Amino acid sequence: MNHPLFSKHEDTLHKALDAIETRGFWSPFAEMPSPKVYGESANAEGEAAFRAHLNRTFEIDQPANGNTVGSEASPFGLPLGIRYPQANPAALIDAAAIAQRAWRDAGPTAWIGVSLEILARLNRASFEIGYAVMHTTGQAFMMAFQAGGPHAQDRALEAVAYAWDQLRRIPANAHWEKPQGKNPPLAMRKHFTVVPRGTGLVLGCCTFPTWNGYPGLFADLATGNTVIVKPHPGAILPLAITVRIAREVLREAGFDPNVVTLLATGPNDGEQVQQLALRPEIKLIDFTGSTQNGTWLERHAHQAHVFTEKAGVNQIVIDSVDDIQAAARNIAFSLALYSGQMCTAPQNIYVPRSGIQTAQGAMPFDAVAQALATAVEKMLADPAKAVELLGAIQNDGVMQRIDAARKLGRILVDSRAIAHPAFANARVRTPLVLQLDAATDTAQFTQEWFGPVSFVIATDSTGQSLDLAARTAAEHGALTLSVYSTDDSVIEAAHEASLRGGVALSINLTGSVFVNQSAAFSDFHGTGANPAANAALTDAAFVANRFRIVQSRMHVEPKTVAA
Amino acid sequence: MNHPLFSKHEDTLHKALDAIETRGFWSPFAEMPSPKVYGESANAEGEAAFRAHLNRTFEIDQPANGNTVGSEASPFGLPLGIRYPQANPAALIDAAAIAQRAWRDAGPTAWIGVSLEILARLNRASFEIGYAVMHTTGQAFMMAFQAGGPHAQDRALEAVAYAWDQLRRIPANAHWEKPQGKNPPLAMRKHFTVVPRGTGLVLGCCTFPTWNGYPGLFADLATGNTVIVKPHPGAILPLAITVRIAREVLREAGFDPNVVTLLATGPNDGEQVQQLALRPEIKLIDFTGSTQNGTWLERHAHQAHVFTEKAGVNQIVIDSVDDIQAAARNIAFSLALYSGQMCTAPQNIYVPRSGIQTAQGAMPFDAVAQALATAVEKMLADPAKAVELLGAIQNDGVMQRIDAARKLGRILVDSRAIAHPAFANARVRTPLVLQLDAATDTAQFTQEWFGPVSFVIATDSTGQSLDLAARTAAEHGALTLSVYSTDDSVIEAAHEASLRGGVALSINLTGSVFVNQSAAFSDFHGTGANPAANAALTDAAFVANRFRIVQSRMHVEPKTVAA
Repeated sequence: MNHPLFSKHEDTLHKALDAIETRGFWSPFAEMPSPKVYGESANAEGEAAFRAHLNRTFEIDQPANGNTVGSEASPFGLPLGIRYPQANPAALIDAAAIAQRAWRDAGPTAWIGVSLEILARLNRASFEIGYAVMHTTGQAFMMAFQAGGPHAQDRALEAVAYAWDQLRRIPANAHWEKPQGKNPPLAMRKHFTVVPRGTGLVLGCCTFPTWNGYPGLFADLATGNTVIVKPHPGAILPLAITVRIAREVLREAGFDPNVVTLLATGPNDGEQVQQLALRPEIKLIDFTGSTQNGTWLERHAHQAHVFTEKAGVNQIVIDSVDDIQAAARNIAFSLALYSGQMCTAPQNIYVPRSGIQTAQGAMPFDAVAQALATAVEKMLADPAKAVELLGAIQNDGVMQRIDAARKLGRILVDSRAIAHPAFANARVRTPLVLQLDAATDTAQFTQEWFGPVSFVIATDSTGQSLDLAARTAAEHGALTLSVYSTDDSVIEAAHEASLRGGVALSINLTGSVFVNQSAAFSDFHGTGANPAANAALTDAAFVANRFRIVQSRMHVEPKTVAA
Repeated sequence: MNHPLFSKHEDTLHKALDAIETRGFWSPFAEMPSPKVYGESANAEGEAAFRAHLNRTFEIDQPANGNTVGSEASPFGLPLGIRYPQANPAALIDAAAIAQRAWRDAGPTAWIGVSLEILARLNRASFEIGYAVMHTTGQAFMMAFQAGGPHAQDRALEAVAYAWDQLRRIPANAHWEKPQGKNPPLAMRKHFTVVPRGTGLVLGCCTFPTWNGYPGLFADLATGNTVIVKPHPGAILPLAITVRIAREVLREAGFDPNVVTLLATGPNDGEQVQQLALRPEIKLIDFTGSTQNGTWLERHAHQAHVFTEKAGVNQIVIDSVDDIQAAARNIAFSLALYSGQMCTAPQNIYVPRSGIQTAQGAMPFDAVAQALATAVEKMLADPAKAVELLGAIQNDGVMQRIDAARKLGRILVDSRAIAHPAFANARVRTPLVLQLDAATDTAQFTQEWFGPVSFVIATDSTGQSLDLAARTAAEHGALTLSVYSTDDSVIEAAHEASLRGGVALSINLTGSVFVNQSAAFSDFHGTGANPAANAALTDAAFVANRFRIVQSRMHVEPKTVAA
């Protein structure tokens, strides 16, 4: 019998299943922060709920050791002053073990139903979470609302749908009957139980705590696992709110809320987290962050199935264009959006040193570089509009990286500080665009310069551009590849380069779809086929290893008589 | 358009898809070596084909370095004298890379169609392969034919069906259209390409080279990967024949046969194989063998997704029975079959020291132990019948293990040599059954004694038996668990123990289904939920990580007009 929460949300689930099958556009969560959808007072209430978290200890009734932890600072300069109850990882492991049994026995429709109910509640908290994302990550509000709220919820729902798509094809029971010639057939009744792997550990990042954290969290929950959520020390609040809502739903549904717990940590707790990641009870790890930490997990947490999203070098190949202005505007937007602090933001823009063809004729390399530079400058000319696009710089590491990058080559557009009209102390920086050369600067541009740093790179030819793009993606990782060409054979070669590099390809984006955006239910985020990520959001491989099947069998009477 | 070989075998594929969904009995490959099915002369021709391999160099036209390798010896005492062309692993990697491009581009229906055609050809070679399995593994002919031929083909087909079940749900194209209020919708055409991971490495074992080797081989092929097959040095021939047939089919279908190659090695080539397993081109490894080697792969081959089947301790819990003779006969068969050289053979038989209940009343521990001992002795009383059940001992390690085990406790049934009526030098040994005690002998019985070694273990109670079974499975691994009880609450407790131990449960087997048998399309072999195996044969998790999806997207005209 289906769990009541499964029945409650079954219509949404079936629409999600249709969506992942056809991969057209679909979302149940409105992406616009519209009063008509979310309620007239939703924005004000959400902001108030966010502000109520400031300068106090976050309330969450889970195992705690009596201390508090927390040192988040808003990139917009707002003092946060939020403390979180500290938990001993061992206590969370123990609590998860106690919670596990009844959760495991509840079975797939309970896991799916509870997950979907949590998502419905998270959607209602989109403004509160949006402000929390804004003031931890530095995203401007609209982006924080969308990426941190409905788009993250979409990605979570997608993971739940993929989980159910696998779970539903495992029969609970089977009748096996093997003919034995003239003797009566052998007959057995078999029972198949889906069992979770154990406890999952979700390691969040500081730029997209919910968008990158939800898929693992919900894939774990939807397959019956318990989960410890360990946010990045710089972006705890969005996941803390999430965990609290998840616990409320679990408790209301009659489960031990310790199915999901929060592990809030400080910046010096890395070793403690590493030790936790090696605990035998931790069977699943979902990580978004640095290549160093992700690779450490992949190489040491042998007891767990480890899903990682790490650094990468995203690339654009410009071969030829109809309208360079439209292409440059689209690219400039991608460079500026959240100051390039997206794992999907482009970094390397390859242009043949001999120039490109446009509808208006040949365009020299320098003119292409200038068109890109001008587009960036024009897009950010008005500070009030610019800050809504740029947001703020999440951390000092990004600030230092901008300074370090200035020395790499000729500056096409320098990064500059912008005063935020609403937040005097906001850390706002425009993109830095440099000119490099494929012949001499490989070491520089084949590493990730996370943040508002990009390179216009002179190549010998589009062939070299594509080869560089494929090799860089394959060897150093990439989540996105973009190509501009009016030549079908180049598009075909770009397609082959994307297969070699194992990276998603966008072709001739000149409108309002941007290479750094990926739409849940339609675009796969990451491929698992290059070092930037060992899994995609979301495909069957992202969920199929999160549960196991344990069977039993016993003799029963045959249904047919002997021949 | 579907590949012609896909269309040719589509009916079989659809039946296999139905079977894995319902998990009832089904097989397209006749398990009886019947002349009516396989042809009147099939047996004689198959044996002749096998004998034609002896004392010569195996012909296979793949990259070779001019040397030969091979030191297989028949456990039945037959000199084999087969040499195999030696290949440098680097040459096979290079050849796979060249073969990969066209194979990748052929796409899913070609991968599935070619895999199914290879299976159809393997089925026709079942006698040749059966004799090859017999004289490398030591299995008696009937088992070698069944397990090495049709049952292995079933497991392979199951893997192909699971692969297709995942591949078929990825649309090749999608139309994505996002409403933009009063503006025209955003519309994109998306294309999804399934790309293989790269080159798979299949590391075979010496007891079930085809049954354990085929699932990985065919899961790799069916998802577009190239494969290097590295048989155990003691059982090369069955996989060499397999690879040759696979290459014939590939060549006939217009592909580079180096999509599948053979790496024949000698007993001292372990380091070379380890180096190969760490090559960056090797993205998938399927291993069956020792815990030591399997764990080494899991901990070092970080570039690959590693599937392992390793050691385990299979267990039987006897609580109460209607008919002890029927239970004892069933257990004795499981102990004797292929001299316990099955990864599924029971080792630990837990019996309460206070005895058990039967339909005839209480039965003391010693009487239960004696009933088991007597059943083993009676079953093997006639040497001519016994050898058809026992087969021969595969290697000296197993012989030495029998001797070492004799010292562990009181001998209930000693292992003895039997003269094989047909093969004077066959290495035939009956099972050794010892009595141990749960209070004192844990260290002995919680490790695997691979071969004809089993223990009747006195426990405090059925509760302790089940707890031991669950803990031993969870900590040391297990592929099978069997329970005998007339009490529903004990069956329920055994079910819970099986979930805790992550091990398949058989209940009250007293007829002609045996705990060490698992039927493709119905029984999952292994669970991945305990240390005996990190994957099951076969579920979605076994195939979903063997391929990736790379997408492209470009703007197109919207299909709907603006609102």
